[in-house]
Amino acid sequence: MGNKKEQEFVKEITPMEEDFSQWYTDVILKTDMVDYAPVKGCMVIKPYGYGVWEGIQRVADKRFKETGHKNAYFPLLIPESFLKKEADHFEGFAPEVLWVTHGGNEELAEKLFIRPTSETIICTMYSKWVQSYRDLPVLINQWANVVRWEKTIRPFLRTAEFLWQEGHTVHATEEEAQEETLKMLEVYRQVAEDELAMPVILGQKSEKEKFAGANKTYTMEAMMHDGKALQAGTSHNLGQNFAKMFDIQFLDKDGVRKYAWSTSWGISTRLIGGIIMVHGDNRGLKMPPRVAPIQVVVLPIAFHKEGVLDKAMEIKNELAKNFRVELDDRDTYSSGWKFNYWEMKGVPLRLEIGPKDIELGQVTAVRRDTLEKFTLPMEGLTEKVGEILDDIHQTMFNTALKNREQKTYTTTDYEEIKKIMKENPGFVKTMWCGSRECEDKLKEETGATIRCMPFEQEHLGDTCPFCGKKAEHMIYIAKAY
Amino acid sequence: MGNKKEQEFVKEITPMEEDFSQWYTDVILKTDMVDYAPVKGCMVIKPYGYGVWEGIQRVADKRFKETGHKNAYFPLLIPESFLKKEADHFEGFAPEVLWVTHGGNEELAEKLFIRPTSETIICTMYSKWVQSYRDLPVLINQWANVVRWEKTIRPFLRTAEFLWQEGHTVHATEEEAQEETLKMLEVYRQVAEDELAMPVILGQKSEKEKFAGANKTYTMEAMMHDGKALQAGTSHNLGQNFAKMFDIQFLDKDGVRKYAWSTSWGISTRLIGGIIMVHGDNRGLKMPPRVAPIQVVVLPIAFHKEGVLDKAMEIKNELAKNFRVELDDRDTYSSGWKFNYWEMKGVPLRLEIGPKDIELGQVTAVRRDTLEKFTLPMEGLTEKVGEILDDIHQTMFNTALKNREQKTYTTTDYEEIKKIMKENPGFVKTMWCGSRECEDKLKEETGATIRCMPFEQEHLGDTCPFCGKKAEHMIYIAKAY
Repeated sequence: MGNKKEQEFVKEITPMEEDFSQWYTDVILKTDMVDYAPVKGCMVIKPYGYGVWEGIQRVADKRFKETGHKNAYFPLLIPESFLKKEADHFEGFAPEVLWVTHGGNEELAEKLFIRPTSETIICTMYSKWVQSYRDLPVLINQWANVVRWEKTIRPFLRTAEFLWQEGHTVHATEEEAQEETLKMLEVYRQVAEDELAMPVILGQKSEKEKFAGANKTYTMEAMMHDGKALQAGTSHNLGQNFAKMFDIQFLDKDGVRKYAWSTSWGISTRLIGGIIMVHGDNRGLKMPPRVAPIQVVVLPIAFHKEGVLDKAMEIKNELAKNFRVELDDRDTYSSGWKFNYWEMKGVPLRLEIGPKDIELGQVTAVRRDTLEKFTLPMEGLTEKVGEILDDIHQTMFNTALKNREQKTYTTTDYEEIKKIMKENPGFVKTMWCGSRECEDKLKEETGATIRCMPFEQEHLGDTCPFCGKKAEHMIYIAKAY
Repeated sequence: MGNKKEQEFVKEITPMEEDFSQWYTDVILKTDMVDYAPVKGCMVIKPYGYGVWEGIQRVADKRFKETGHKNAYFPLLIPESFLKKEADHFEGFAPEVLWVTHGGNEELAEKLFIRPTSETIICTMYSKWVQSYRDLPVLINQWANVVRWEKTIRPFLRTAEFLWQEGHTVHATEEEAQEETLKMLEVYRQVAEDELAMPVILGQKSEKEKFAGANKTYTMEAMMHDGKALQAGTSHNLGQNFAKMFDIQFLDKDGVRKYAWSTSWGISTRLIGGIIMVHGDNRGLKMPPRVAPIQVVVLPIAFHKEGVLDKAMEIKNELAKNFRVELDDRDTYSSGWKFNYWEMKGVPLRLEIGPKDIELGQVTAVRRDTLEKFTLPMEGLTEKVGEILDDIHQTMFNTALKNREQKTYTTTDYEEIKKIMKENPGFVKTMWCGSRECEDKLKEETGATIRCMPFEQEHLGDTCPFCGKKAEHMIYIAKAY
């Protein structure tokens, strides 16, 4: 944090305490994660942002395959009639779908809509593919773009078009479908916690908040720096609802034709917004090492001096065998400027190599998470870097967890809930009678919603704080993105 | 080729000599590569077909990154006004774009079209991002879906929606843009020949056949089993056409503002159709090992016998460390049925393990390309399998090359060209004056088109066979998909 130019560089980011929303916008634009597209509600994911998505795809896809799923691709465009088959689903999605009416100069015989999610087209195909119990289970995932018409935009968090994966499975029994629904939620938890260093709370959504057409929706909820919740992934048990509407029947072992049971589950580019808001600080991004597009940046210092650039290149090439590494050998910027630049980009580990380092057979290392500076012997560098990246992951997870715990309150006093949501939003653990009335009242009076009925239920009291009747569930409530 | 059931199994595929088009349809449907979607012109890519696309993505993306490109994502939907900016481009694409007119119940202020290719939206963003020579080159690629409205469908070869990658680069000089255009064509050649075992001819497209809005289009052309050509990948030098229309200007080192030079290049799910039609035979698919979704299938024989299934599982697990392997332990099908099934699926190598094999410390291997059967010691199996897969790749490439050579004719006699195209289509090497008239005449009178002016020019004669004027280029002509 030396000269004036460097300070200005950091000053470009609005401090999060001052205006969290502006901080977010500053960070995503200044780090080249994203840009606004000239189409209302749409974003352009720039290479640095897309690199994070590639990381998420890599770690999620591996787990999908390990749990027996295969990828496929279904059409973007779906005939109007399909949307109307499942009534709740139609009601949920019709207001936000985009309609294709013409091809070239010709009007289409039947209007098509752009998938906001693909249950309708996928179930139509499954109805054709599933005939016998031998065809089950169907375990298919799709990586795709979807569109839900939005006029407002919050890049990564709320955009008309976004990228996601949607798993769609079919099973012979209710038990298997439920098992799959929960298994994929657990996979999502692993992706969030073990890869993105983002602690999550697992639980079930209320009737009001569940997916349009589902029997049960499970969710993972993460807390952002400002105490608000982000729904980071959902897994739906669709029961036989879609099977009945789209006629997915199979001949069972016992010779009886039965309706199948289905599930769907998804995570999206929203997770990138989550990474930014869980880990970032006033210097910019902090990338979780396991999905960071660049894990290590190598900076030659005083690299007009003989041997420095060669050594930096050598180290970069060596590390590149095991990590995603970049060498910043631009001679148009000062080292101080580069320090701030790469901190803003959130690269987990910076390695500096100058003449003195070479002399001493070491590199100077700076961790992005703690800003700690230390030296490492060049000997055995690869192994050491691996250990440090693991430690950065764990430290980032712990920091995020601590932050969440600090902003999690337990109370069954509605007045206190109101006060928390007004003055210092966070997660509130409380009780609930289970009624829609209380849920609506909460939303209307505090702006907060029921995030989930967590799997880890605690008995915090006997009565619902909103109506005074008997409490049925422990819940997390929060304001949410 | 034992019992009746097995023969029937193979009989389901129409022999290619009888009806090549029906052979193709039979193969893609019976091997679960693809299915027809309930939307006109659209396909569903089933897991086995999508697995091939994942293989192509893997080998191509690696090379894109090695040549300095990064992935990004641009919006699916583009405002109408953008399409009109580049006149040739508009003329080329307007007749086949799909129009989005409504969001929910609301009419949109400006109609949007679904990208048929993304030059218009990407150049709009580049205009904003490129300010100085320091911002160049821009080397970005996008993996995406595109839609070009088609009423007919030929899965993988011609569909309304397809998956592809589109690289879009910007450069400071004409020379750099040309270098990039040719570099990416070379990358495509590597993907086709070194990964898909598909020999290609590289060359330049005629003015008529070039991309709408390009200065020059380069192509790789592959020959299918029926002697027809498949345009398997193209790379376009866009000159300053898009830079001028979309205002991509930069301040050069010399302090002068200049228009930039751009390129674009793409390969698509069409390549899957190419793989099928270059390598397949009357037993079904032959998957090139390096992109095969399953490289090795392990079949336990007589697996009710003690130890067989365990051993098969052990071998599968061992090979899975290095290869994409599947164990077929279904007890509902006979071994004979399975042999045919996996041959039809085109899995490059089948390993059978029965009680006798275990006794002798061996496995029985069958290559899909040659149908050759032989034994392999279990000791050192991984290394051996690697060698065999490499050999299968090379043998498949050689076979395809030989097939192409057998169906490539050299003549400057137009009557002979007509006869070839009518009786026994293939590639014809001939000469051309360069005129649009001769090109149109050829198409009209023979159904064949100029596939390219190959880089490897030969002097086959002095006059154009179509008009008798002076010949300017050697060309390949063929009927094409």
